[in-house]
Formats: sequence, C-alpha cells, structure tokens
Amino acid sequence: MSRTYLDYNATAPLRGEARDAIIAAMDVVGNPSSVHAEGRAAKALVERARAQVAAAFGADGADVIFTSSATEAAALALMGKDVHGAEVEHDAVLSWVSSDLDVASTGAVTVPDPAHSTLQLANSETGVVQNLPEGLLLSDMTQAFGKIPVAFNWSGCQMAMISAHKIGGPKGIGALVVKRGTDIQAHIKGGGQEMGRRSGTENVIGIAGFGAAAEAAARDLADGKWAQIEKLRNILENSIAEVEKHTIFVGSGENRLPNTSCFAAPGWKGETQVMQMDLAGFAVSAGSACSSGKVRASRVLRAMGYDDEVASSAIRVSLGPDTTEDEIHRFAEVWLAKHKKFRARAG
Amino acid sequence: MSRTYLDYNATAPLRGEARDAIIAAMDVVGNPSSVHAEGRAAKALVERARAQVAAAFGADGADVIFTSSATEAAALALMGKDVHGAEVEHDAVLSWVSSDLDVASTGAVTVPDPAHSTLQLANSETGVVQNLPEGLLLSDMTQAFGKIPVAFNWSGCQMAMISAHKIGGPKGIGALVVKRGTDIQAHIKGGGQEMGRRSGTENVIGIAGFGAAAEAAARDLADGKWAQIEKLRNILENSIAEVEKHTIFVGSGENRLPNTSCFAAPGWKGETQVMQMDLAGFAVSAGSACSSGKVRASRVLRAMGYDDEVASSAIRVSLGPDTTEDEIHRFAEVWLAKHKKFRARAG
Repeated sequence: MSRTYLDYNATAPLRGEARDAIIAAMDVVGNPSSVHAEGRAAKALVERARAQVAAAFGADGADVIFTSSATEAAALALMGKDVHGAEVEHDAVLSWVSSDLDVASTGAVTVPDPAHSTLQLANSETGVVQNLPEGLLLSDMTQAFGKIPVAFNWSGCQMAMISAHKIGGPKGIGALVVKRGTDIQAHIKGGGQEMGRRSGTENVIGIAGFGAAAEAAARDLADGKWAQIEKLRNILENSIAEVEKHTIFVGSGENRLPNTSCFAAPGWKGETQVMQMDLAGFAVSAGSACSSGKVRASRVLRAMGYDDEVASSAIRVSLGPDTTEDEIHRFAEVWLAKHKKFRARAG
Repeated sequence: MSRTYLDYNATAPLRGEARDAIIAAMDVVGNPSSVHAEGRAAKALVERARAQVAAAFGADGADVIFTSSATEAAALALMGKDVHGAEVEHDAVLSWVSSDLDVASTGAVTVPDPAHSTLQLANSETGVVQNLPEGLLLSDMTQAFGKIPVAFNWSGCQMAMISAHKIGGPKGIGALVVKRGTDIQAHIKGGGQEMGRRSGTENVIGIAGFGAAAEAAARDLADGKWAQIEKLRNILENSIAEVEKHTIFVGSGENRLPNTSCFAAPGWKGETQVMQMDLAGFAVSAGSACSSGKVRASRVLRAMGYDDEVASSAIRVSLGPDTTEDEIHRFAEVWLAKHKKFRARAG
C-alpha cells in the first residue's frame, strides 16, 4: 500500500540536497580537531555548513552553536536560569521554565518581561505564530524556520533554537543561535569544540546535511513553495468543513504556519483517528509528536481554553514540499468516511 | 599525492557496513516517537542498533543510552558528582573530576575508592591499558572498545562510555552504558526519549551507523584483525628503534592497545613532526587529538613522569584495519629521513 506522509511537523523526509551532502561527507575521514590535512578538510566542511545555516536563518554575525537537537539547545540556553514561559511551549522548553505566561484563546502569549522569558515563534501542534516581543531571551524557532520568513538578526531575540530534521535535514542535529558575545556556560565539556560552548567531536555528516537542507529550505521559501502548501492546507480544511460543520479548526483565524492544520472532532479520540488513518495509509499525529510514545489530551489546546473532550479529540495534519493535491483530497475523503462511521457507532 | 591515514585513535574512516546502514536509514522517514508506521519503522531501526551495540560491547541486559558523543556521555555520568580521576583521562572526563589519583611511570593508575572514581580502560595517546578495579563508577572505554576484547558485563563497572567514530562509525554518536537500574539524572530534558534519560529526537542515521560499525568491529576483532595490526605497529617501532636508538617508545613494555605507538624524539617538537609528516602525506597527531586545535606538551606523558622536553616531542601513530605493511615501511622511512635532517640542523 502506498503511504501518504502528512506529519512534517514531527519530522520531514530527508531532502535530496541533504542526502547528497551526507554521502559526500561520509568520505571525509578526519576529525575536525586534527591539524593535518584530513582534519582541516573535516573542519572546513563544518564551517561551510555553519555559514549555510547562518545565511538561511538570517543570522550572519551571530554565533551558530551546533547541538544534537533543538532539545539540547534549549537545555544549553535555559539550564540553571530563572525563565518564564507558557504552557504552549514544547516539552524541551517547558522542562526548564516557570510556565506562568498567559495564553489567550487565540493561542497568543503575553510576555511582561521579555529579557527573562522564552516564547516559541510557532506552535508545533496548531501552527499559531507569535509576535515576539523585542529583547526576548530565547525563542524556539524550530517549527517556524523554513516555513515562514525568519531572520534571527531582525527578531530582537538574544537566542533561538532550530533543528535540521524539521526542514529536511537529518535527525540528531540542531543549533542554538546566539547574538555574538552572549555568555553561554558549556554543559558538555572536554575538547572545547563550538568555541568552548559545546564539546565533543562534531557530527560531521549531520552538520553537512543540516547546512545543505537549510540552503534548500531557504530557496524553497523564496520560490513561493510554501504559498502552494498553504493552498493545499486550505483545501483540506474546506473539504472537511463543508461536510462536517462542527469540526473545530484550531487557530484558523490566526496567523498560522502555512502547512499546519489542527482540527478536533469532539468525542472521536485523537489517538483513535491517528491509528485509523495510519491503517488507511496516512501518517498524521495527535498531540505533540516529539514526545516518546505519549498520546494524551493536548496540553496546548487546554492552554487555549479548550475543554478536555476537544483537547483529546484533535489531530494535526502537517504538509510539506512534496505533498500533492491528490493526497490531500484522498486524506479528506478517507477521514470523512471514517468520521461518518464513528458517528454512526457513537449513535 | 596519495595520503596515508595513521590517526585512527583521533577518528577512524567510516566502515563500509556503517556507510550502507546510514544510506538505508536515510530513507526511513518517521520520527521514532511517532506512533504511525513511519514512526515505528524509525523506532525499530534505533532499537536494532541498540541491540547491535549491546551485543558487540558485551552489554546484554545493560542499558545503552545513546548520546551525541562519549563526551556527552561523560557529562551525563559525572555532572554534579564528586568523583576522583587521574591526569591521564581525556578532557571530557577530566573536566568533571578531581584529578588526584596516582599515575605510575608505567601509566598505571591506583584507585583507592572505585565506587567514587573513574578510570579509562585505554589511553588515547599511549594506548596503555588499565586493570580496572571491581566496582568502578565509570570507565572511559572509548579507545579500547573494538581494539581489544571488552565486555561491559564482566568489567565490574557501573557505567562506561563509548563512541561510534573510533570504531568506524559516524562522528556525533556515542553512548553511556549503565548497569540496569542505575539512577541517571537527565541533563537534556523534553520528550523523554532514551528511557527519560536523554531527550531529543534520535540521531537515527548516526545510531544506525553506530550499530553496523559495532557489529563489524566485533567481527574484525574475533577474526584476529587486530593481531595483524599489532604486528605492523611492532614493525614500525622496530624499524625506528634500529636506526634511532634514543627514541622513547612510551608504554612499550606495558599492556597496550595493539594499534597505538607513542614515541618521542627529544628536542624535535611533536607539532613540528606532525606538520612535516602531514606535508609528506601522513596523518598522525601530537598530544591529545580530540582537543580543538590545541597542540602542546602532552599532559598524559607529564603525568607518567616525563619531563617537558620529552612530553612536547612525542607523536602518536595509530593504525587501523586498513593500514598496510607498505604504508608502515614508508612512514618509518620518511620519519627517519626527517629526523636525520632535524638532527643535522640542531647539531
């Protein structure tokens, strides 16, 4: 059975450009810390990728610190600090902050003290995009980077996290991007790599893949690829809304990521929907997808004021550059048929 | 000019088996935390590699926690603890411990309190192998794993660190291996991956490469490959000793890794030797190779009682499964010729 992958916010398929860069990097033998020719070649590859990521992220002149994930980047930015955040943040951020910032029913977060606060640029489940206040300590830009225009230099943020695998790079490589001169206390110490801020032999193939993916993602965005994706997302929502008028499209009136649709069919458990759609050949998710095997009522939706029934009946469909209109039509058709069956059973 | 790579202790070239596993893993689309078919396929790949690493490391029944490097594994094992270590440890370990354990002139370390101490199994610069005391808290087995028979289950250690790129796997992936039930406080928090001990989306291609490399490395070892490498190492040392009788072969009377030769030509700076040999087409290193661009007198050799002149005049030649006898003869020939020139100039 052919599969349709509509879970780009969980992880995106590897881009051809990243694949090629990884394959080329596999032949680079040296350790970037070695002074001989093999070492210098590996170092050059890392630094080229660093420049590619910085350019794609509008972060020329900032420091790009490669980490093993955005999750590690959050720990590096937040561990030991007293920072405010909101319940809509990813677990990787929420693990380190006081979750005391107000979340409106639109998803918008109020930030009274930006210098001691963190705020995501876009939410992974709903796609809701925040207006970042000037002087914010940290922003999780993992979901926004590559999908909407983002420039770190213009964001007004001291630090930001990004991840390769959300933009078609490999899993297991991310970055903490910081304004030059930001004091960062290393948590992983040793050889002094990453300007002394994050030791350990570099993930050379991952970094090379990240650089290539960032460059390709920036090009796609400039080429209007995500405006097409938005059209498909809207086709999906309209197809469903026409038939099932009580479906709740979370954040649909707000500034959202172009590829993300989060909708609830109250009473029909999100995890059941995910499993039924999986058996029918479609990969989507319920709740936050980056948590290990956990499926439960969405913390994000509850923070926006939805009750438990709605919050546990939502799924997220997230599209990508390879999604086709035919896939979207088939998804809507199958989902609607299954919804009808559910209602017949629920009586 | 063809190059001869003799710096396997810094990093080993990627094995064909690891390369194939990485290429196959690049087509696995899902996030291992996703519950749909794509996610489950990615998860299966990670768990298969975990079993491969455990089997190769004699760690069935132990917990293999994948990290981005042995350096990260050391931080995970040691941060916030009060642990004793010796000056011969890698910077990744030394950054976290009180370096107060005695080092003999042989390189052997005395460990009065194993439960609160860490001791490497083999030294990266000299190859000297330690007798690990029963009940040791942590051992850095990064250099020993794959080169000599090692079984975590029989080591008497609570925890051990290993790294993929030292055994022909990719850079940027390692593991902390712990006896089942060991209490590990996560430093990277979020989605709860790696049994809640190390969050962040898994480096799927790196983990797949690590698993394949571990399996292949264990097979090479069982096939007697490293006995052949030892013969070549001894040919190298004998070729040099016959001509330059005052060369100091560090640890040559001790139990050493079969592939490692650390030798000093007093007065001829190690970094000069490395650069001259690099220009002649040979990749070797001086001092610890895992430190970012730092070249200086070897801390390890000083801890063994060598004076600064010797400690700054040593190089490390480390062989691997692909090293040929012809390469070793050519290395010895070129090194001896350059040494003669050095003495003529110094003379």
